[in-house]
Order: sequence, then C-alpha cells, then structure tokens
Amino acid sequence: MKIGKETIPKTSISTSNADTIIVRGKNLSTELIGKTSFVDYFHLLVTGNAPTPAASAILNATLVAIAEHGLVPSVQASRMTLAAAPEVFQGAVAAGILGCGSVILGASETAGRLFWEIRERAGAAKNYHEAAREVATEYRNARIPIPGYGHPLHKEGDARVKALFDVAVVEGIDLSFVHIAQALENVLPEVTGKKLLLNVSAAIPAVLLGIGFPLRALKGVPILARTAGLIAHLAEELEQPIGFALSYQATREVQYAGSTPEDFIPSH
Amino acid sequence: MKIGKETIPKTSISTSNADTIIVRGKNLSTELIGKTSFVDYFHLLVTGNAPTPAASAILNATLVAIAEHGLVPSVQASRMTLAAAPEVFQGAVAAGILGCGSVILGASETAGRLFWEIRERAGAAKNYHEAAREVATEYRNARIPIPGYGHPLHKEGDARVKALFDVAVVEGIDLSFVHIAQALENVLPEVTGKKLLLNVSAAIPAVLLGIGFPLRALKGVPILARTAGLIAHLAEELEQPIGFALSYQATREVQYAGSTPEDFIPSH
Amino acid sequence: MKIGKETIPKTSISTSNADTIIVRGKNLSTELIGKTSFVDYFHLLVTGNAPTPAASAILNATLVAIAEHGLVPSVQASRMTLAAAPEVFQGAVAAGILGCGSVILGASETAGRLFWEIRERAGAAKNYHEAAREVATEYRNARIPIPGYGHPLHKEGDARVKALFDVAVVEGIDLSFVHIAQALENVLPEVTGKKLLLNVSAAIPAVLLGIGFPLRALKGVPILARTAGLIAHLAEELEQPIGFALSYQATREVQYAGSTPEDFIPSH
Amino acid sequence: MKIGKETIPKTSISTSNADTIIVRGKNLSTELIGKTSFVDYFHLLVTGNAPTPAASAILNATLVAIAEHGLVPSVQASRMTLAAAPEVFQGAVAAGILGCGSVILGASETAGRLFWEIRERAGAAKNYHEAAREVATEYRNARIPIPGYGHPLHKEGDARVKALFDVAVVEGIDLSFVHIAQALENVLPEVTGKKLLLNVSAAIPAVLLGIGFPLRALKGVPILARTAGLIAHLAEELEQPIGFALSYQATREVQYAGSTPEDFIPSH
Repeated sequence: MKIGKETIPKTSISTSNADTIIVRGKNLSTELIGKTSFVDYFHLLVTGNAPTPAASAILNATLVAIAEHGLVPSVQASRMTLAAAPEVFQGAVAAGILGCGSVILGASETAGRLFWEIRERAGAAKNYHEAAREVATEYRNARIPIPGYGHPLHKEGDARVKALFDVAVVEGIDLSFVHIAQALENVLPEVTGKKLLLNVSAAIPAVLLGIGFPLRALKGVPILARTAGLIAHLAEELEQPIGFALSYQATREVQYAGSTPEDFIPSH
Repeated sequence: MKIGKETIPKTSISTSNADTIIVRGKNLSTELIGKTSFVDYFHLLVTGNAPTPAASAILNATLVAIAEHGLVPSVQASRMTLAAAPEVFQGAVAAGILGCGSVILGASETAGRLFWEIRERAGAAKNYHEAAREVATEYRNARIPIPGYGHPLHKEGDARVKALFDVAVVEGIDLSFVHIAQALENVLPEVTGKKLLLNVSAAIPAVLLGIGFPLRALKGVPILARTAGLIAHLAEELEQPIGFALSYQATREVQYAGSTPEDFIPSH
Repeated sequence: MKIGKETIPKTSISTSNADTIIVRGKNLSTELIGKTSFVDYFHLLVTGNAPTPAASAILNATLVAIAEHGLVPSVQASRMTLAAAPEVFQGAVAAGILGCGSVILGASETAGRLFWEIRERAGAAKNYHEAAREVATEYRNARIPIPGYGHPLHKEGDARVKALFDVAVVEGIDLSFVHIAQALENVLPEVTGKKLLLNVSAAIPAVLLGIGFPLRALKGVPILARTAGLIAHLAEELEQPIGFALSYQATREVQYAGSTPEDFIPSH
Repeated sequence: MKIGKETIPKTSISTSNADTIIVRGKNLSTELIGKTSFVDYFHLLVTGNAPTPAASAILNATLVAIAEHGLVPSVQASRMTLAAAPEVFQGAVAAGILGCGSVILGASETAGRLFWEIRERAGAAKNYHEAAREVATEYRNARIPIPGYGHPLHKEGDARVKALFDVAVVEGIDLSFVHIAQALENVLPEVTGKKLLLNVSAAIPAVLLGIGFPLRALKGVPILARTAGLIAHLAEELEQPIGFALSYQATREVQYAGSTPEDFIPSH
C-alpha cells in the first residue's frame, strides 16, 4: 500500500558494496574502526560531521550524566522483563527503553524545544529573561508543564547540572542555551509560584544545543545513555537476579479495591 | 506473588541520597561527568572497573564496527515504526533493538560462548586447532549452526574483521580468542565442506574476551552500538521520511497465495 | 525513589489467594472460563461489567474490522523482526504493536476524543452539524489534523464503515456518535476544501462510544485487534518466511544521497 | 541487502483492491464484520478456517483462562512504563508483552511441543504413560526443565486446569493431549522426585492441540490473551496511576552491595 507521495527511499547515512561499507563518506574499516571513538562516531552518524574536541567532551559528559540512576521504574521494568524472559536480552533492553517517555527522560527533548523557542523569542536583543518569562507564562496559561525543572529527590539542586555546566565553560562552547536555561530558572518562581531548579534533563539540551547538536536528535541522547545503564543492570540480573524480588516487594502492600465473592478469603 | 526464593533486591551498580549519586563507588557528578568518556563509563557500569587504555580502545573499536550497516531489516522496522508513530522516538528505537536476535546480531554472544568452549576444551595444551575441530564437529552433529562465520554480502572476507584484529595487535591485548577464532575458521571447510570466513560477529567477541569483557554482557555490545545507528536513522527519518516508501517498495511484488471470491479483481 | 504522592498501589481488576483467582468480583475458574467469551471477558476486564448482547456484538465487530489489513508497515516491521530473531515471538509482536501510533491506528482514540468534544459542544441542543463545523474549524486553525477521515487506498468510501454502522443500527445501540461522525464528514469539505470520507478509525470510536466503552480504553481496541493479525502473520512467517524478502525488496531502489570516497564503486 | 534465497514475498492471509479487503478468501466488510466473533476470526486468520463450535469454545476458554492474573511482573513492567511515558499506550502494551517469555507465559508453547513429542513416541500403541516417562527422563538427563508443571502459588492444583479440561469434555474434543498431559503429571514424581501438578500453561496446549490448533501458533494464544489483560490494567493506570507506587514499594528494601566514598551517607 502506498502511503504518502515518496516512493523512492533515500538515505545519506551509509552505503556498501561487496567489499566496503561507507558511512557518512568514510570507509568504515580503514578510516573509522580503531580511528575514532564510539561517541565521536555517534556524532558523525547523527550529524554527518566528526565533532570538535569540545563537542566530543560535551556529548560524552551528557551521556555519562544520564546513563544510570539506580533502580528507576524503567530499569525495574527491564529487569522484571529479563526475569520473565531470560533468553531475550534485547527484549528486556527494549522494555527499558520504552520507559524513556515524557515523564522520565523525554524532558531532554521538550526542554530543548522550549529553550529554542525562548531564543527565537528573544531575537537579536537577546533579553533571555524577558523572553523566558513570556514563554513560561504562555506554557502556564496553556497548562503545559515546564519540562526539565524540579526533581522528586534532588530538591536542593542537581549536582549533575553543575558538572555539565562546568564542562561547558571549560570547553568554551556557545553558552547561549545555558544562559537561557538559567534565565528560565530565575523567572519560574514568579511565573509558577514555586522554586523549580534546573534538573539534568534541562542541562543536557542546554549544553548539547551549544555544540550544534540537532534538536530532532536530542531525544536520542538519553536513550543511548540509558541503554548503557540498562545493559549493566541486565548483565547484573543474569548473574544475580532480582527481577522477581522487585516484583514481590512491589505488591506486598497492594490493596484490592474491587468486589469479591462472599466466601473468598484474601491471602494477604 | 512470590516467584523464587529471593525477596530482598540487591544491586552493586549505584545508590544515591538526596544530594549525591554514587555509581560503582564513584561520585557521578564530581568524579565521572566530564572526567570519563561514555565508553569507559559503560565499561565501568558493566564490569565495576574502569578499562585500561587498551581495553578502552578495543571496546570503542567494536562499538564502531557494528553500529551501522545501512538499511538492514531492523533499521527498516525501526523507520517504518517511526513513520507510523512519529511521536514515539523511543518506540521506534525499541522496535529496532528487537531485531537484534540470533540471526542478525546475536551471533556476537553465541560465538563468544563457542570460543570459550574451545578454550576450555583445549586446556593447558592450548591446541586450539584440535579443540576447534572437536567442538565444531559436535555442533555439526547436533545440527547447531556455527555462529559468526559466513556473510551474505562480504564473501571474500569482512574488512571489519581485519580492522578489529589490527587494533587488538596494536593495543597488545591477550590474543588467545583471536587465535581460537582463526583456528575455527581454518577447520570449518573440513568440518562443514564450505569456506566460511570469520565475520564481524565473531571478531567482536574474539577481541572483547581478550580484554576480559564478561561473556554474559557480550550481547549488550551490538545492542548499544546498534542503538547509536538507529538514532541516526530515526533523526534522518524525522527530517526526510522514507519509512512508508520502504514499505511501499517492499510489497510491490507481493504475491497473494490464498483464495479470493470469484468477483474480486486484484489491484496489482 | 518516590515519584508522586501515592505509595500504596490499589487495583480493582483482580486478586487471588492460594486456591482462587477473582477477576472483577467473579471466580475465574468457576464463573468465567468456559462460561464467557474472550471478547465479553475483555469488556469485563476493562469496564468492570459484562457487556449487553448489543455491546458484545459491537465490540466483536470493531475488533474484526481492524485486526488485519495485509502487509501494512507494522506487519512488515513485525515479520522482519521475527526473521532476525525467530526465537522471540513476543518480540516480533511487540515490534508490530509499536507501529500502532498516531498515523496508522491511533486515530481511533483521537477521533473518539474529537467526537466527544463535538458532543459536549453541541450540548442539549444536539445540533451536531454546527458543533462539528465549529470544532473542525478550530482544529484547522490550530493546524491539528482531523483524525479518522480520508484513506490512501479506499478513496470512494471504506466498506468497513458501512459494515460497522449497519451492526450499530441492527443492534439498536445509541447512535449519537455515529451521527456526530457523519455530521463531521458532511462539514469537512467546507472546512478543509477536501472530500474526506469517514474511515474505519473514525467508525470504530463512533460505535464503541455508543455502547459506553470508555474513551481512555479506546486505543486498546485496535491494539488487541492488531495483535490477532500479527500473530497470524508471525505464524505464517514461521512456516513460510518472507521477512528478509520484504527487506530486500524495500531497498532495491534505495538511493544513497551522501558522499563516497573517490574509489568506491556502488554495487547497485 | 539480500539475506536468504527468497526474494518474492508471498502471503495467504489477505489481499485488497481499492474497494475490497479479502481475508482468508472472504470479503471482510460483507462476510466477516458483524458476522463472526473476534475469536472465530482469530482462528480463521491463524489457520485459514473458521472454527467448529467446539473449537471456538475451547479457544475462548483458553484465552479467558490466561488473560489476567493480577499484578504479575509483566503487568508491573507495563504499568511502570505507562507511568513514565503516559502518552504511549502501545509502548506500555509492548513492554508488557515482552515479559511473555520462557519463565512466565512461554510454557504454553514448550509444553505443547513436549506433548507432541510424547505422542510421537507413543506411536500407534498409545501407551502415553510409558512414552511420558521416557521423554521426561530424557529432559531430566539433559537438564531441560519440564514446562507447564508446578506453580509458585497454587500448590494444591490449579482450578483453571480443571475448568479447561471440563470444557474439553463437555465440547467433546479429541482428548489425546489431555491424557498425555495427565500421564506426564502421573510420572513426574517418579522421574523428578517432586509432586508437580499440571498448571494452566500445560492445560492450554493440551486442549488447543485437541482442536487442531497449530503448534507454531501456540505462543500466540497467551500473548493475545495477556494483551487484553494489559489493556485493562493500562486503562486503570490512566484513571488511577500506581506505576510509580509499585516502583517505590519495589525498592524500599533494596540493599546496595557496592562500595561508596567514605563521606557518603545513604538516605535509606
């Protein structure tokens, strides 16, 4: 079935013949394997260009920042999935990635779009405070949550944010989006009535946009990062399984709120 | 419901309090972000230890080798999924990862187990040829396919194999598993009657086992690598969609082999 | 980590002790297995109540209408996934379900929300035409696509729509949402400048809302239906594999739009 | 890339032209929607034939038996995934389905293969006890677990088994595989030293093989069934979220077994 107008698929990422694989114009075997790091290769794959050393440092720092945060819900989902289907490593990874949605990890992309919008609004004048106030107020009025601010655990500020911004300063990248992110943090109490500090999901796009990483690929960064964390958890699960123990603990205090037959005696 | 005996979940990967995230004994914000590369962090996450420079070079090389190979079936599945559900980047990544199974990318792990078995069999004598012949013959008799040898496209040898083995030699890692992999290649014509050259899925475990990367995490390497490739394809899909064009092309010559009502006129 | 305020999980769907499983207040083994059809059980699971005969007929008809439509992109993705990982049936089903997004199958839910909004707007007066015109114009102005209208293949009307509406009439269900769906079809040429006929994704919520099926579960109907279709395709794939043939066809005319080294000779 | 020999995709499930969708030889809109139940349609899709009334009763009973069993690990994984990505219903369903693996739901298929093997072994003599003893002993010697026997909760027999076998008797289907399943239950104490009662995962293939349902599609039955249960849980999750509460409970007693910096104070 034909859906849409395009019928000839085009791609600019790679091609090959019987002997040679070309990726982004380079010979994979002679110019890339052993010659470039995986993270620089990721940058090349996504953008078509090798990163500058500063861009490479930033991309590495963001991937390290977000790869692992303990037994968060998506890691639990992944470990329970491996416990139930231990022969399917990739299925458990996929289950964990499916939890990288709007609430947990998706904020990297939506915060990136928000910063972009503030920068557009500020225009040549670059009054980021005023633009941040305007855009945040519009989000507020449209009842759209502000992505990338506040955290259930780190109420006094997320140390990962400071670490990422430090790398940005040391590497000398464009700090426009860092300033926008901070401007927004400053106006949020006024707009929302709450102190909502920058969290890691806002710091990531703030520094990635500063190296020219494309908006549309932002969501890929937490996904790639989290995949590394999931693989570590699943390797641990294969050695020391806890998927079913997590599941058991999760339901110890479950309350059944439905009806039961008269003669039914609950077991817990 | 209690499944199994363990009820208290344990993990050695990370812990945190309100201020600090500890990963493998290190403070994420002050000791890892900006201080270590993502690939070295992946090694730390999986094994508990930072890699040596040689181990880091090998791990990077394997990830680069396997991240991208064009519009393979799992990339097509991923791009079609994004075309159908463009709002769900993580769903399309997950769909692509689900294609990392036994036929396409899973051979890294199964070839690793095969090499391990050959090394065990060879014992102190280290006659890898003889052990490879024995084990390959047993696989053959049990009708288990030999993973990691042969390739539909690269019939004259996969240049990625040479590139990975070159890195192994230059970095001076333990080459036992490389020798085992080559010994197996040498005996396969005799055992199977076919020339079956080492492909990249065998070269990857051959060098990773040489840096002490754990067998049980081998499958994670092609999955992490392929996630990077998928993200690049999905970022391209968002900019220049081909998911539906691929789908259209795929079905242009489909033959319907079932019955139809008498008055039905096929449209193609 | 605590996310949100709730810490005690509650559910009204089922409970059990060592002998007995209670689902929605009924004993699974003595009151449900062999006593109720799977579709009626699905209705009970989702809503807490057994369906009336009319509701059962409607729910069955919608599930039949949407379960199968040939080698659509998500079925291709699913069959390619099984070809690559033939040992993981559930992974291939999951990959196929991930393609049930906004473009392909998600319209059932969004069209349902649109109809609900038109009904709210019409209020007691029940002038559905006027309300449909208003809401459709608002969608148009906000550049939100109208879900559930138009089809790439069935330009002269989707026979599944007629079939579903016939069942609705015969079964005597509440036809309000059918009338709303038709009112919207009538005003669309005026609002959009295009003839956009009701497709099956709009007909499904039109009849399901007429039996009181909850809005929030609407998306589940095409997913359950499509799962049946995927299982049939995967059972066929195990017997007569075409996943790789689809993939081969899909890329026969692919054009590589990137650069290549000077000495690279494309193979196709 | 060409993988394998087949290049022309063939399917016998469905075809269509601009007006008409044909499924298994029938016109979807005029012969199936409103004329057949969803479960009978599933049978038609998978096997090519409409079921007999007895086969329909059995297929419905098995789907009802396995659709729902409370907050099992895969349901928890699914609800946590929806909590993290509430905009992606299909992603949460997919995550839940990925937990339908060998340990939890996959036993339906593997038990089916085991029964098939016992029947082949018994041959014309139909001494199922002797054949069951032989095959179970071989499994035991090869250290392959016997699928479909024993249950963590229902130690005194699973009432769903009795319910399914009652339907089989009432409907008058071929009981060969029920007898094989019971023969195996009888010999297991002798072979394994443990009383291991038939569980629902063995009863399902025992009755489905009795209606001629194909072995290769057996795994589809618990997947389709469980999809219905997952949809009910996800609809409940959208109304009354517990995904994060489950996750919180799951980790309340987690022990961190790794090292920490000297100055780190655990929060729990």
